[in-house]
Amino acid sequence: MNKLFTCITITLALTACNATVKTNTTSITNIPETSVETPKNIIMVVADGMGPAYTTAYRYFKDDKTTAHIEETVFDRHLLGLSSTYPARESGYITDSAAGATALSAGIKTYNGAIAVDVNKKPVNTVLQWAKKQGKKTGVVVTSQVNHATPAAYITHNESRENYNAIADSYLDNGINTDLILGGGWKYFIREDRNLVSEYIQADFQYIDNYQAISQLAPQKPVLGLFAEVGLPAALDDSNPHRLSMMTKAATSHLANDNGFFLLVEASQVDWAGHGNDIASAMAEMDDLAKTMEYLELYVKNNPDTLVVLTADHSTGGLTVAANGKYIWQPALLHQIKKSPKTLAKQLAKSDLTQNEISTILNFEVSKLEAQQLQQAKYKGFEQREKYRNLSKTAQAKMKEPSVEKFMHKAVKRLIDSRTNTGWTSGGHTGIDVPIYALGKQHDIFSGQLDNTDIAEKLFSLLGKKQ
Amino acid sequence: MNKLFTCITITLALTACNATVKTNTTSITNIPETSVETPKNIIMVVADGMGPAYTTAYRYFKDDKTTAHIEETVFDRHLLGLSSTYPARESGYITDSAAGATALSAGIKTYNGAIAVDVNKKPVNTVLQWAKKQGKKTGVVVTSQVNHATPAAYITHNESRENYNAIADSYLDNGINTDLILGGGWKYFIREDRNLVSEYIQADFQYIDNYQAISQLAPQKPVLGLFAEVGLPAALDDSNPHRLSMMTKAATSHLANDNGFFLLVEASQVDWAGHGNDIASAMAEMDDLAKTMEYLELYVKNNPDTLVVLTADHSTGGLTVAANGKYIWQPALLHQIKKSPKTLAKQLAKSDLTQNEISTILNFEVSKLEAQQLQQAKYKGFEQREKYRNLSKTAQAKMKEPSVEKFMHKAVKRLIDSRTNTGWTSGGHTGIDVPIYALGKQHDIFSGQLDNTDIAEKLFSLLGKKQ
Ligand SMILES: [Zn+2]
Ligand SMILES: [Zn+2]
Repeated sequence: MNKLFTCITITLALTACNATVKTNTTSITNIPETSVETPKNIIMVVADGMGPAYTTAYRYFKDDKTTAHIEETVFDRHLLGLSSTYPARESGYITDSAAGATALSAGIKTYNGAIAVDVNKKPVNTVLQWAKKQGKKTGVVVTSQVNHATPAAYITHNESRENYNAIADSYLDNGINTDLILGGGWKYFIREDRNLVSEYIQADFQYIDNYQAISQLAPQKPVLGLFAEVGLPAALDDSNPHRLSMMTKAATSHLANDNGFFLLVEASQVDWAGHGNDIASAMAEMDDLAKTMEYLELYVKNNPDTLVVLTADHSTGGLTVAANGKYIWQPALLHQIKKSPKTLAKQLAKSDLTQNEISTILNFEVSKLEAQQLQQAKYKGFEQREKYRNLSKTAQAKMKEPSVEKFMHKAVKRLIDSRTNTGWTSGGHTGIDVPIYALGKQHDIFSGQLDNTDIAEKLFSLLGKKQ
Repeated sequence: MNKLFTCITITLALTACNATVKTNTTSITNIPETSVETPKNIIMVVADGMGPAYTTAYRYFKDDKTTAHIEETVFDRHLLGLSSTYPARESGYITDSAAGATALSAGIKTYNGAIAVDVNKKPVNTVLQWAKKQGKKTGVVVTSQVNHATPAAYITHNESRENYNAIADSYLDNGINTDLILGGGWKYFIREDRNLVSEYIQADFQYIDNYQAISQLAPQKPVLGLFAEVGLPAALDDSNPHRLSMMTKAATSHLANDNGFFLLVEASQVDWAGHGNDIASAMAEMDDLAKTMEYLELYVKNNPDTLVVLTADHSTGGLTVAANGKYIWQPALLHQIKKSPKTLAKQLAKSDLTQNEISTILNFEVSKLEAQQLQQAKYKGFEQREKYRNLSKTAQAKMKEPSVEKFMHKAVKRLIDSRTNTGWTSGGHTGIDVPIYALGKQHDIFSGQLDNTDIAEKLFSLLGKKQ
């Protein structure tokens, strides 16, 4: 396929004072003029929810305080611009992940909730589907369930992201267009009414359900890998906190072929940490993403015919780096946190909550006041639960039993926010423009201010689709 | 001065599959090799406090809902990258405007509060001072007092931004290096102990103290224009809501000369709106800045030998576009607000606060509930003031009398936040990276991820300073 060819571009810039004359892409006799050089492999990385506060925060989180300078991150090396993220007019200015993913996958604005369908619910072509048609292998690697909004909007079409079973079914029923799927979601693929896993196996896929099996994949044979009931464990709780980079490594080597591949990688849980206003988990997910990008830097170096684009679909949580009028942000503490606040809250809910015990569980020294705050949260949780248990059965049926763990979970996150001086304004998404990064072949076409739909359009055009 | 010369740059990109050979800046016989083409005029625009949430918010604020698309702003046309803003290590990760301005003016990291001095309090050379030495005219145009942190860090040196009088004095005492100064600050220039205005006049400056006089400036003669006691009125309260663009227009025509000029323009009050968590004022200040940038677009078109760079020193207030878990941001209301919330609060404090009266003052219909909230704020303010007035003289001496207007001011801003669904996390600065925009000659050297100090370094290098 890839015949050797040589392309020469000459840029002549003649500049006299106050007068600029430019001649671009002057072709030289006997050498074919190619306006666009298509990368063989395209890797689209979506960091769900990663607004610019996340990449900034990550730089200071990673700062080595023993050095004079603040170290550059992998993101800093490849920033090219910002992207707007608004959905179709009927959904206002703030997108959800479905409309955001559809903009990135299909280049169109649609309503919140839409999976690769337009405002009239008509299916729209996606870059993954188009790449498949061009003879490329395709894959998706995510830390959410594999039928979650972002991967779904590249693979299939549905009028609602909430139709999880229908979306999973369609991966097969619409004709399999993906050679590799890695992520979570047993729940949707092995159901009482249908076993999609056996259908995949019948369709000659290899199926794996644990990280160890990733290193022993049979080459050539397409693969379905599901490693969790729904989404993968949070980075802080997972047996491998760098599971996204591990899966991405496997995917690039598994998909490599003469025709090239299109791979979607999603750091799905940056968004989940944002929804939870959980800075410890956010930085852990960012760290897995950074490892993934560092691996992809190496991959591009060894495979220069590869383009990697990274952006976010939106920002989440209204994260701010500093808050409360104080000119400080202190992320150092976050390195001591070895489990997600959710898991820590479960342990705390079972503990006596002495200052010592709390310090042991959290893995950092808490003050007397902080211990009291956690004790109060536990007390409040018990109080609410008792109130609930004293209600009539009919009254109980109308609500969920309050969970002590939930009260503890919130209290732990507020303690960490207070220590680090982190701010949040929302449990949902915000409208701020998100950063765009790219490296490898043709990366510079993603420079400046873009709209999320421009990113898909540029990928389509690199893949030879006439607009 | 500007001898005609021709510079030819040839970029040869030979690309075979998986192999890239690049030859840059190949010089051709007889033509001098110039690595950098210096723009004749450099206009540095600092939008104090303008993090990426402000430029995003402004796009949706300006959106014409009657069109299918969301209109591009002047910012969108010139985005090149993002800049980190952290100060010297001893001040943590969150900068103030003094350290931020020193990074932008002198290219060094220093402590918060420092005006163009390093961490050892030693004065450091600024791009304005250097440009003056190169024979260029220089000017500053700001909406704050002209001896505020940002302009001060370009013009002079001081170990603390708080030394307002000393900073104003030094503008003369260190040798005048600025041909044009427009902004606010009578208070610091006409004092009991010293009248700097008459000293400027003795130094052959023309002095003006009202906007009308701006259009009648004598050409060639240097100018000091002070239009307010301290900072200029907020855009929403000023006789000319586009006073920054008006002053910038005057400055560019006044400073134009064969050797070129260096002009600092500061949209000072984006920051003040951010500190006040005041989205209505923030958008009005952004609108004045946008008008300024639109004028500078035109200026660059007519004077292509000009470089314009726009960035922020940091973001302020932890502004988020949407909040409280809701996927909406509704800026349309802001167009109905014709005075600053501070001014509206003064009017409300004097009114009976009927639902009708409030609606008339605010210029939009308030609900019964919203009217009640404002009534409660007024009541609370009165209550606190009465409490204070019943205190002993000695107890009173220890605190300020609570102001009913302040309670109203806060309530009006919270009402607007609630209507627009705007979020804030701080009355201070945050650490998020800020956008970089540039247009005109050599604008593309400001692309990608930069540090604030890089911006000064690049300007120094354009101005021929060897690093
Ligand atoms: Zn989300
Ligand atoms: Zn400030």
